[in-house]
Formats: sequence, C-alpha cells, structure tokens
Amino acid sequence: MTHLVLIHCPNQPGLIYKVTGVLFRHGLDMVRTGEFVDRLANQFFMRSEVIGEFDAAAVLQELRQALPPTASIRITNNEPKNIVLMATKEHHCLSELLVRHEFGELNARVLGVISNHEVLGDLTRKFNLPFHYLPHAGRPREQHEAEVLAVLAQYQPDFVVLAKYMRILSPEFVAHYTNRLVNIHHSFLPAFVGASPYAQAFERGVKFIGASAHFVNEQLDQGPIIFQSVMPIDHTQSAAEMAQAGRDVEKITLARSLKLVFDEQVFVNGNKTVIFD
Amino acid sequence: MTHLVLIHCPNQPGLIYKVTGVLFRHGLDMVRTGEFVDRLANQFFMRSEVIGEFDAAAVLQELRQALPPTASIRITNNEPKNIVLMATKEHHCLSELLVRHEFGELNARVLGVISNHEVLGDLTRKFNLPFHYLPHAGRPREQHEAEVLAVLAQYQPDFVVLAKYMRILSPEFVAHYTNRLVNIHHSFLPAFVGASPYAQAFERGVKFIGASAHFVNEQLDQGPIIFQSVMPIDHTQSAAEMAQAGRDVEKITLARSLKLVFDEQVFVNGNKTVIFD
Amino acid sequence: MTHLVLIHCPNQPGLIYKVTGVLFRHGLDMVRTGEFVDRLANQFFMRSEVIGEFDAAAVLQELRQALPPTASIRITNNEPKNIVLMATKEHHCLSELLVRHEFGELNARVLGVISNHEVLGDLTRKFNLPFHYLPHAGRPREQHEAEVLAVLAQYQPDFVVLAKYMRILSPEFVAHYTNRLVNIHHSFLPAFVGASPYAQAFERGVKFIGASAHFVNEQLDQGPIIFQSVMPIDHTQSAAEMAQAGRDVEKITLARSLKLVFDEQVFVNGNKTVIFD
Amino acid sequence: MTHLVLIHCPNQPGLIYKVTGVLFRHGLDMVRTGEFVDRLANQFFMRSEVIGEFDAAAVLQELRQALPPTASIRITNNEPKNIVLMATKEHHCLSELLVRHEFGELNARVLGVISNHEVLGDLTRKFNLPFHYLPHAGRPREQHEAEVLAVLAQYQPDFVVLAKYMRILSPEFVAHYTNRLVNIHHSFLPAFVGASPYAQAFERGVKFIGASAHFVNEQLDQGPIIFQSVMPIDHTQSAAEMAQAGRDVEKITLARSLKLVFDEQVFVNGNKTVIFD
Repeated sequence: MTHLVLIHCPNQPGLIYKVTGVLFRHGLDMVRTGEFVDRLANQFFMRSEVIGEFDAAAVLQELRQALPPTASIRITNNEPKNIVLMATKEHHCLSELLVRHEFGELNARVLGVISNHEVLGDLTRKFNLPFHYLPHAGRPREQHEAEVLAVLAQYQPDFVVLAKYMRILSPEFVAHYTNRLVNIHHSFLPAFVGASPYAQAFERGVKFIGASAHFVNEQLDQGPIIFQSVMPIDHTQSAAEMAQAGRDVEKITLARSLKLVFDEQVFVNGNKTVIFD
Repeated sequence: MTHLVLIHCPNQPGLIYKVTGVLFRHGLDMVRTGEFVDRLANQFFMRSEVIGEFDAAAVLQELRQALPPTASIRITNNEPKNIVLMATKEHHCLSELLVRHEFGELNARVLGVISNHEVLGDLTRKFNLPFHYLPHAGRPREQHEAEVLAVLAQYQPDFVVLAKYMRILSPEFVAHYTNRLVNIHHSFLPAFVGASPYAQAFERGVKFIGASAHFVNEQLDQGPIIFQSVMPIDHTQSAAEMAQAGRDVEKITLARSLKLVFDEQVFVNGNKTVIFD
Repeated sequence: MTHLVLIHCPNQPGLIYKVTGVLFRHGLDMVRTGEFVDRLANQFFMRSEVIGEFDAAAVLQELRQALPPTASIRITNNEPKNIVLMATKEHHCLSELLVRHEFGELNARVLGVISNHEVLGDLTRKFNLPFHYLPHAGRPREQHEAEVLAVLAQYQPDFVVLAKYMRILSPEFVAHYTNRLVNIHHSFLPAFVGASPYAQAFERGVKFIGASAHFVNEQLDQGPIIFQSVMPIDHTQSAAEMAQAGRDVEKITLARSLKLVFDEQVFVNGNKTVIFD
Repeated sequence: MTHLVLIHCPNQPGLIYKVTGVLFRHGLDMVRTGEFVDRLANQFFMRSEVIGEFDAAAVLQELRQALPPTASIRITNNEPKNIVLMATKEHHCLSELLVRHEFGELNARVLGVISNHEVLGDLTRKFNLPFHYLPHAGRPREQHEAEVLAVLAQYQPDFVVLAKYMRILSPEFVAHYTNRLVNIHHSFLPAFVGASPYAQAFERGVKFIGASAHFVNEQLDQGPIIFQSVMPIDHTQSAAEMAQAGRDVEKITLARSLKLVFDEQVFVNGNKTVIFD
C-alpha cells in the first residue's frame, strides 16, 4: 500500500538522510520523492511516496526525534478528504465538482453545499447532497458568517472550497480555515484584481484570459497561488463572451488545483506554494 | 499578384457591399477577407486579400467616393516595411530580429540599429548593419531624444521597434511615431507593470510568466496590445531563472507581433487592436 | 435580431459582391463576416452575421439566382440545434454535455441519450432526459445499428454526438448522418490511431497528450477535424494517470467543437474544415 | 559550489538512504533532489543538487560500494558541454543555437559546425566558428559518414546536435554516439513520421503542429523523446505557411531540450526519458 510522508521544516544539513534512514529501517521503499530547499527562506520541503507495511506511529515518532522541533510531519495514506463546497449563483465550478465527485474522481467526499442563494439547490439535490441556503441579505456580516461557520462546524471538513462564492470573507472567518480554504479567482492574478474582471479584460484588449486557484488568506486575492491556466481570446469576443469562455478555464483550473491539494502535492511556503509532481 | 485592401471607418449599412462593388468592377478576386464591426464603438474594419491586375489609384479614388470622408483606406502589395530597431543591453530580441532579417523572414528591411549602450554593436555589425550608439548618460532627456529622432529622420522608417530598449520615451517622442512604435513588454500585461517584473513574479509565486507586444502611446505600457504569450514556470525557479525563461517568450512574442504588423493584419481600434488571421 | 448567412460554393470572381449586394438591398447590416477561398480546391466559403428585419425567403431566392447552381446557401437565426447523445460507459463527456445543457450553455436541445450499456442511465435521468439502452451484445451489428437508427429517426436530430461511444459504426450507419455526426477521438490525431491510445502514449514516452473532435466519415478516425487540444504530461504519470488526464482534455475539446458546430462556425471542405472565428 | 549527483540503477530498497548517507557524511547539503522509480521496469533514477566542499573521488568510490554494481553514477559540476552542430540548408535551428552560444546561454561550447551543404557557412563564420563542408553528393553513404566521424573524432564532443541535418544516419554511425545525439524532428511525434510533414499536416487539416526533440537511436525517429511543443494553426494557412510557422516551434523545442540535456536533467530510460525539473 502506498503512503505519503510529508515534511516541512527549517533547513539544515542531513535532513533527507535522517528521513530516509528512518524510512529504510522500517522497511519502506521510496518510489517517488520530491525534495526542495527554498534557500532564500531556508525552508526544507519533502514529499515521498512509500510502499511497504509499517507502524506509522513509530515512524512518526522517530521522525520527530530526528527533525527540528518545529517540523511539520505528516504520514497519510492519501485517503479522500472531507470537503464542503460554497457557491453563489454560477453553476460551472459547482457542477464540475459535483460530477467528478459523483464518479469518484475527486479524491474527496463532498459533505454538503452552502450557498447564499437558492438557485443551485436543484443541481445539488440531483446529486443527493445536502444544500444549505444561508442568505446574507438583511443580515450583518458577522451574523451571516457565524451561521456559515456553524454549518461548517457540523461537518468538520478538511477543506472548504469556494466554488464561485461571491462574498468577501472576513479575516476572522478565514482564520478558522488557514491553508484549508481554496478559492477560484476569476482572472490571471495579479491582473484584474477586483470586480468585473472580464469587463476590464475586454476594455484592455488582452489576448488571453486566465484563472487562478489559491488559498485564501486575510488579504483578499493575495493568498498562495496553487494553479493557473490561460486560454486565448480575440477582438471578436464581447465582454459577455469572454465571461462565458472564462468559465471553462475557471472550472478546470479549480478542479486541477483541488487534485493537487487533495493528493497532498501542495505545500504552503509563506505566500507561495511548493508543488511536487 | 496579391494586394491588400485595408479599410477603417465609422460603421454604416452597406459598407462591405460598396467596397466589394468597387473591387469587382475592377476585376479583382477577393481570396481572403476579414470584416469586423465594433458595435460599441461603431467602427468598421475590413482587410481583404485580392488578386488580379488593376489600377490602384483608380480603385482608391472610387473607394474614397464610396466610403465616409473620414475613412482610412489603404491599398498595398504588402512589400517589406522599412524599420529601425532600438535596444539597450539585452541581446535576445535584437538577435532574433537580426537573424530573421538576415534570412528574409521578417517582411521588413532593417535600416539600422540605435542603442544607448555599446554592447550590442558587435552583434549588429556581424550582420553588416549600421549601429548608432547614442548614449543617454550625462544628457538631458530632451537632447538625447532629439538625437535619436535625428537618426530616425534620416531613415524615414515605417516602424520603429523597441527590442528591449530600456529607456522611457517622452510623449513628445512617441507622438512622432503614433501607431508605428512597437514595444515588447516584459510581462503579461496588465500584471507586473513597472520595474523588476520577474522579481515581482517570483515574490508572488505565479505559475506562468508572459510577455506582451504592444504599440506605444503616451501612457507607458498602456498602448494597444498586439500579441501575448505565456510559458509555465514553477517554484523551483529563482527570479534569475525566471528572467532567463522570460527572454524566450519575449523574443518569440515580439517576432510574432511584428509578423502581424508587417503583414498588415493589425488595426488599431482606440486602445485595442483588431487582428485578422 | 442577428441572423447568419452561410454560403459554400465553387469560387468565381464577384461572389462576395453579389452576396453583399443582395444583403444590402434588403437592408441588412453585416456586423461580422468571414470569407475564405481554398485556392487549391477552388472553393468559396462565407459566413456573415447580419442584423435587421428582412424576408428570409426572398433573400434566399435572390442568393440562389446570384450564385452558382451547386451553391449551398443557408440563412438561419442560429436557434438551438436538436441533438442526440450516444455514449458507452465513460461519463466524462456525457456529464459535461448534460450539465451545459441543463444550464442552457450548449446552444442545443438534448432530445435523448442512447447507450449500449446501462451504467450512464442514472446520470441521464438526473437531468430528466430519456435514456435508451440498446445493448449490442449478442446481436449482429446490422440489427444493433438498425435499432439505433430507429430511435434516432424518432428524434430527427440535427446532429448526433458520439460522447465516448466506443462501438465502430458501419459506413451505412454513418451515411445517414453525413457531416452531422461528431466524435471525440481519444488522441491527438493522427497519432495513436486505434485501441489503447494512452497505453501507446505511455510506451512512446510522449510529453503531451491530446484529443481531437471530428466529423465521422466512412473511414474510421479519418473525418474532418473540428478542434484539437493538448495537455502536457511527464514521466511520472502511469498509463492509467494519463488516461485520467486525457478525460479532461477530451471533454473540453468535445464541448468546444460542439460550440463551433452549433453556432454554425464550421464548414466541411473535403476532408478538412474551415472555421470562422 | 553546486555539484550534481546523478544515479541510475536497478531499484532495490534503501537506495536513497544509502546515497544520502554518503553525501551527508561528506558534509554535502542537498538543495534540490528528484527521485523516481519506474516500477514497471524496476529502475531507480536520482538527481541531486548538492552544495559544499568535498572530495569527489572519495564520494564516487563510496557510492559505488553502496550501490548495485551496474549502477551508473556521475558527479559533475555541470560545466559547459562540448558540442558539434550538424545542419543542412535551413538556418533556423543553427542560428538559434549560434546566437545563444555567442551570448553564453547554452551551457555548452560549440566546437564546430558540420554540413553537407555550403549555404550555412556564412552564418557560421559570422560567429567565428569552424565550418566543415562535407558534401554527400556522389559519395557512398559509408564514405560520407566516415568523413563526418573523422571530423567529430577531432573534437571529441560530449554531444552532437542535429540542427536540421536532413540525411538519415546509419545505425553504425548512431552507435558511436549512443544517447549523445540529439535530433529535432519536424512533427509532433508519432504523427507524420517521414517526409513532408507539413504537407501531410495540411492535407489532414490538423489544428496544431508541433516538434519533438529526441535522442537518435538505430530506428529512425523512434528514440527517446526529450521535449515537445505545439502551436496552433488554422485553415487559412497554406502548407508553406505551416512550414514557416513550424520553424519557430522547432527551434525553441530544440533549444529547450538542449538546456535540459546540458543541465543534466535528462535520464534515458529504455525508449523513454525521465526528466527532473
């Protein structure tokens, strides 16, 4: 059976030797390993797929002894993640994820869908999943976010996916799900931050549009980028047609980024990511 | 022989009929035509490749009578354009263009190269082209630009190509070559405007870098975009490696944009371009 | 209201003038026109978006008089096409199309789904569409195809879409839907024709995989290509992972090709296509 | 100073531990490591960038003792490779490489250029490099290849680059430079193997053209692929225009593949490659 060993800590000489020594002594065969040192930040990242039978608790304890005390160390069999999806009115990202989930392609269990509008309820129920309609209209933001947090708390998700959830979340909300909140941003960051990106792209006459999937942090649209894609456009397309074209690139970008995240290929490194193939 | 008929004017009903009538009466066969109406701006654009023998002056006169008085109308046999290249220290765009020119692939005659440094003189002279070293150091900007304009005036170029010319040009300078001054911008506009784009891209952790070729107007980096390209990067690349990778995408982006411009496939439409395949 | 005028005929001088004359006399404004002459085959293709009120029958009659007698001439308001989808066991293309259909993004009405297996019935019924299970096992091919043709005949579809329908269709079957049968091919044609394309790609160690959407003609996988896409892969991916990655590119390639076809942007030109932006 | 440790051997448990142990004991810090096991072929590949002062001969000896006897083990400081370029009449790949070489971007020393025609001599001499004109006309293939081998033998190159060398080389010739002979193939392998690929692509109506850089082995065009690229084309392009467009993708594909090879990022694995970022 394949397990993953995931390590992030300050760099020092001999780390990979120490790690591989522990794995070797426990009879594990490392079949795919990525290791990267950010020399500017002096950070060490390692991801190794290992095969063999072993005592995970013992390996973890030995790794803790071998590595710096602040090291983040995880051993996982890459089982499906528990996730909650949040959306507003546009269906394209939500339907992409619900279909992939239906056919077992997401490496995740969708526990439920939260929306501040009702329009995506029918779609969600087609796939026999709970739909939580939590309107924001007429409520203070604090109250609305508290209601969302309460529903999330019931599910205890590993990750929350903002699949075109069009409300800005407060830093307080975000802090509950640090590095566990994935957003799809409707442009090729850092271009066209803010509202109406396709109208901006149309006005500027760009030849490509793109999308960026990223972790959300307290600064809107400034969190670590996980995956980006682009697609060509031209002068014949109206702003509305660009928006339509943009939906294809958004949904595939989000799905690809989630595959990377759920398969544990992504480390957060400050405001950037380290991605192992 | 193939000629091009190029028209840009305010839109009104019947324009294409009037144009094709003139062409037909003169025995011209239209083998590839693009026509586009910007309905928001009410602008009509048409590019037609025609074959046949004809009296160009007579056709032009009839088109002038048939079309609105403000119409821009050109008939051309797409002969090579006369151009001057400007560069600073980086060779990659200049060498790309000099090699293509050497082998007759640019649809242009390079009349000379202007630089504010001496380092690219050897490269230029390998290809037996005049190299004008016009240093800016120790001179007021007005004087330096006047010297550049004086050299350009000798050549009367159709287009001036900024092949990594790293000085900001004044609006007065730019006004001499409206829509005839092509620049390669070291990022995927509108992201990373300004200095050190690769350092910015590195800091932000983006997954693509790009380049944009555009006409220069009085606002720096805000002129009509002609062509853009992107290439993927990842976390393993330093800012210096990103810069190196960026050079490939810059030179190909510039060369492609010039092919479009010199083959008369590009119309300027306000701050955007209309490109006909 | 926007209409499309679509013309394909042998080339001769003056065709575009004759066409635009008819349109102008009927008060139509041409807002986007593509015209292309295949000079080797001497074929003329024209697609024009026109706005204005007009008598379509009268325009059609005048165009028939003006153009060669073998001309194909169509005037359409680009209304949604009637289509039937055929699939076997893989869901990714079918679900992509059903979701787009559900949200009105396909410019088509899906009348029903035909499959030679039962597994996609649940998915189809989620979207309240008829599912026709027509097994091929234990039947002569002629009988099975006759049953499929009988169901198709009930629907009178404009197009039949093979959304991963994994049975080879006889030339007799194909002849019923000449240039109206769209297939998604599991490779970047003409590479890897035949079975197990991802296993072939894995063995060959290619760095990209792709997909091709094409019209089906009597020679398997040899019909006119409508749209192709590629995505990068690398040595770390197994043949199974390549197949999974291939599904993303297949479904988007098929959806894009259908958008082109249903929006009447595609002309068949012998064994190739002419596509107008 | 950065060194590279490169290992390829049959897989067995503990290899990475053994290697890292040797490196650690010699005080080396591993700053970027890629490790991959081809589980079907049971082959182990490892590439590690290490920093520190060390006795390379001692490390090599210890690694030899630690690893299987058939292991390929190299320690290198990634110094520029010695190369010879071969070309025929087309300049685009040769000029791309000569310019990059001129400006120190190739991580290689071009020792000379061999051609079976004279036309690229002027270009080569611009860059002050020896040009060997070795015509094939009127000579038996064996004699011609012997003459080429004799010139190559003078230079003792690490790699020979076929930069659009349009003669088929015999298996006997190829055997002298196993895994050291890089070719640029004028199509997206395995499509359009053989002559006139752009004419084939034009006839088939494909929507992309590509290029493939690969090591040459005894079977023509069947060696391990190093790098591939594609670029979009459309129906408006003639076969000649496709060929012209193809030159851009060929030269960039070749240059990128050489960067990977010269920077020691490529391992040959049977008929495929393993590439470490």
